[in-house]
Amino acid sequence: MAATIQPAPVEDADASPGRAACLAALQARFGARFTVNETIREQHANTLTWQGNQPPDAVVFPETTEEVVEIVRLCAAHHTPMIPYGTGTSLEGHVNAPFGGVCIDTSRMKAVIAVHAEDLDVVVEPGVTRKELNEYLRDAGLFFPIDPGADASIGGMAATRCSGTNAVRYGTMRENVLALEVVLPDGRVIHTGSRAKKSAAGYDLTHLFIGSEGTLGVITKITLRLHGIPEAISAGCCPFPSVHAACDATIQTIQSGIPVARIELLDAASVRSVNAYSKIGLPETPMLLVEFHGTDASVQEQAARFGEIAEGLGGGPFEWATRAEDRTRLWQARHDAYWAGRAANPGMLTFATDVCVPISRLADCVEETTRDLESIGIAGATVGHVGDGNFHTQPFFDVNDAAQRVAIEGFLERLAARALAYGGTCTGEHGIGQGKMKFMAAEHGEDALGVMRAIKQAIDPENLMNPGKILPQRAGNMR
Amino acid sequence: MAATIQPAPVEDADASPGRAACLAALQARFGARFTVNETIREQHANTLTWQGNQPPDAVVFPETTEEVVEIVRLCAAHHTPMIPYGTGTSLEGHVNAPFGGVCIDTSRMKAVIAVHAEDLDVVVEPGVTRKELNEYLRDAGLFFPIDPGADASIGGMAATRCSGTNAVRYGTMRENVLALEVVLPDGRVIHTGSRAKKSAAGYDLTHLFIGSEGTLGVITKITLRLHGIPEAISAGCCPFPSVHAACDATIQTIQSGIPVARIELLDAASVRSVNAYSKIGLPETPMLLVEFHGTDASVQEQAARFGEIAEGLGGGPFEWATRAEDRTRLWQARHDAYWAGRAANPGMLTFATDVCVPISRLADCVEETTRDLESIGIAGATVGHVGDGNFHTQPFFDVNDAAQRVAIEGFLERLAARALAYGGTCTGEHGIGQGKMKFMAAEHGEDALGVMRAIKQAIDPENLMNPGKILPQRAGNMR
Repeated sequence: MAATIQPAPVEDADASPGRAACLAALQARFGARFTVNETIREQHANTLTWQGNQPPDAVVFPETTEEVVEIVRLCAAHHTPMIPYGTGTSLEGHVNAPFGGVCIDTSRMKAVIAVHAEDLDVVVEPGVTRKELNEYLRDAGLFFPIDPGADASIGGMAATRCSGTNAVRYGTMRENVLALEVVLPDGRVIHTGSRAKKSAAGYDLTHLFIGSEGTLGVITKITLRLHGIPEAISAGCCPFPSVHAACDATIQTIQSGIPVARIELLDAASVRSVNAYSKIGLPETPMLLVEFHGTDASVQEQAARFGEIAEGLGGGPFEWATRAEDRTRLWQARHDAYWAGRAANPGMLTFATDVCVPISRLADCVEETTRDLESIGIAGATVGHVGDGNFHTQPFFDVNDAAQRVAIEGFLERLAARALAYGGTCTGEHGIGQGKMKFMAAEHGEDALGVMRAIKQAIDPENLMNPGKILPQRAGNMR
Repeated sequence: MAATIQPAPVEDADASPGRAACLAALQARFGARFTVNETIREQHANTLTWQGNQPPDAVVFPETTEEVVEIVRLCAAHHTPMIPYGTGTSLEGHVNAPFGGVCIDTSRMKAVIAVHAEDLDVVVEPGVTRKELNEYLRDAGLFFPIDPGADASIGGMAATRCSGTNAVRYGTMRENVLALEVVLPDGRVIHTGSRAKKSAAGYDLTHLFIGSEGTLGVITKITLRLHGIPEAISAGCCPFPSVHAACDATIQTIQSGIPVARIELLDAASVRSVNAYSKIGLPETPMLLVEFHGTDASVQEQAARFGEIAEGLGGGPFEWATRAEDRTRLWQARHDAYWAGRAANPGMLTFATDVCVPISRLADCVEETTRDLESIGIAGATVGHVGDGNFHTQPFFDVNDAAQRVAIEGFLERLAARALAYGGTCTGEHGIGQGKMKFMAAEHGEDALGVMRAIKQAIDPENLMNPGKILPQRAGNMR
């Protein structure tokens, strides 16, 4: 097995006749759907987190798989990196272009190709966003459950193995993608999986591309599982005396088989900032927001059982949001927790950490993480998809204060190490991108990382697909 | 990307000093846990279906991961093929040794390493069988749902991406394996995944090894998801006027969100042979066997809703097996359908086909398949995991009648083509092994097959891990 990737050298765009020829050819072919405008290029690199902004040399907007093939063939012929792009809502620098190259923006690929209501599946192009898809599906009584908060594109969600608040019941993109169409780094088009619910036919290429973050090819079609819109939905919030009690309630809920659709933790700091930002007047203690899906009778039964569990752990009273608009307000407030935290800490930089651990270790991991931040004198707030053991602690810090930056780096190292020591992962749903490459060896071990490198080498031997992501490079390999 | 595998030539064991030296070294190291006994070798090759029996040169019985590493290193050093082995219950010649080599029988690796009740997971060695695991878990109130009928080993079930009657609710091995330990073809040991419920950290190696049928490495530990034993279980059978009506009832059940735990079709021919074999006195018409899991109240509600759907399609009356022993009898009868079919057709050979299609196409696919068999004058019977769109039509034929053999080959070709035309797969759960390699190109296309070959080449460049399975070889590559 190849132990390391030896990519072909890629020169600076300004200095490389190949790169310049590639851009000229794309310009000639795509006209107004090709741009080197600096503002647009910067918008197509990382804009959301403290990773720097590394714009591509150009952005191109294909409208069909065939156009993606043309772009990929041109780039491959000129040894030009390609960065597939959805909505740019990823959080770890996934869309940065550290070696320049061409950003392939799929946002014009917006067709819902086929809805198969009887089979509960849909085939879409990658630029369709999850909200657009659910708008489209509503009249058919169907919905697509994966909800990361941001209105991300389905292509990007597949590429990052995205999840969110509904994953505890419906799974992540890993469980909800049946099939893919992918343009390989040399321009060949493959189809992985099928519309059958299961298959034992050979290597699972679908799951290889889900979560590959654009490093193995460009996803151009996605077949998703759908679900019927539940007959009854009820949601509510339940205060707890401590994060530990809230986590224990979560464990008991999952263990007793209650098919909870969402179970979200907010610590007291998060509740305070959410109250201030969204004016929802929650009691300012650790809190679980929960939602149940089912028939009227089963939803009532689930809620009653959850209420008993909460009461047994000193939680409650459980307050219901029975009206759809109140539910929407509650979940919007939850999704806005990140922005609420920013508003509550003016002038401070923040970002969301993303470790995920076995749920038995969740309370300890959250509490140790909170104490760690306190010990370095940095404010923080935590929300979590606790049914999955996944939580996001946000530190709020002064990015211009070198000591705080160093302290945050140390905090992130300890957080990842803590999650791994508890049998977990450095990222539950945000992905590796650039930001977490340094944790890959610790999480997987050098030999498993070697298998990943061998696969990358086998599928993208020139290292042209989103280079500089997921797999830590040896220094000097590019530029 | 490498388009084809160019394996190192492997000579005949008798003629190869390398092979002989390998066997001698294993004999010296493993003593009584190594054998070249002909009967044992034949038992360790395919024994169940009409694929021939191709025994390995030797069988070795490791007890630890470290011993597997020793075996793999020895075999790799001597260019000797390795065939990982669980219980030998696979159905497509997966454990045959077409190029000879060493069968690595994992049946002595039987430790349940850790049960994490709060996290609903368990870590096991590959030789633990599913029934042994469920015995072990019962007192903790937990169970592992995947149930292929045979008492297969967990390692083999992971290697073949196995499923069975509970998959409609609980998923297949694809959804129920969290992490693996794998010995690579060069003897290095990797760990894939973690005990976290989800992760977005790099390429999904866990899913790459699930379903790889021993062609990429030897699975030596498996972390599985568990479930709480349901408070209430109810099961029963419901006759229908036609296969079509039973399939329509299945579609409506799934679509309306009833979380049915099992929903199994038996056609009239299967019911007749099951009645004769298991003496359960079912009405001899197409039949759905169903099971519901939940609380007392939710199980009653599910059953009532299913009953309404069945009645609306001319089915019923729905008969309950309320006592646990009656339920067990019912499901044992279902699992014995294969043997019941053999008993009903004395002197005839049979095997189970395994296509899987979107459920909207299931009724048509089953009926066309039945008519196809009738048209070539061969008896058949069908059972199916209809909630997944997966069915097993068993032909009964005279293996000594050359015309019937040819007719069956044609039937199998048409069956696979029919499933693919309906957007399905040639195998829902049995896997490719040797028997279905000829359908791989039609199912995946040459380019996707090329990606699979490139991955095999990257991880097993010498083609020593279970060669001659999954990926069709060019003629003359081995022996």
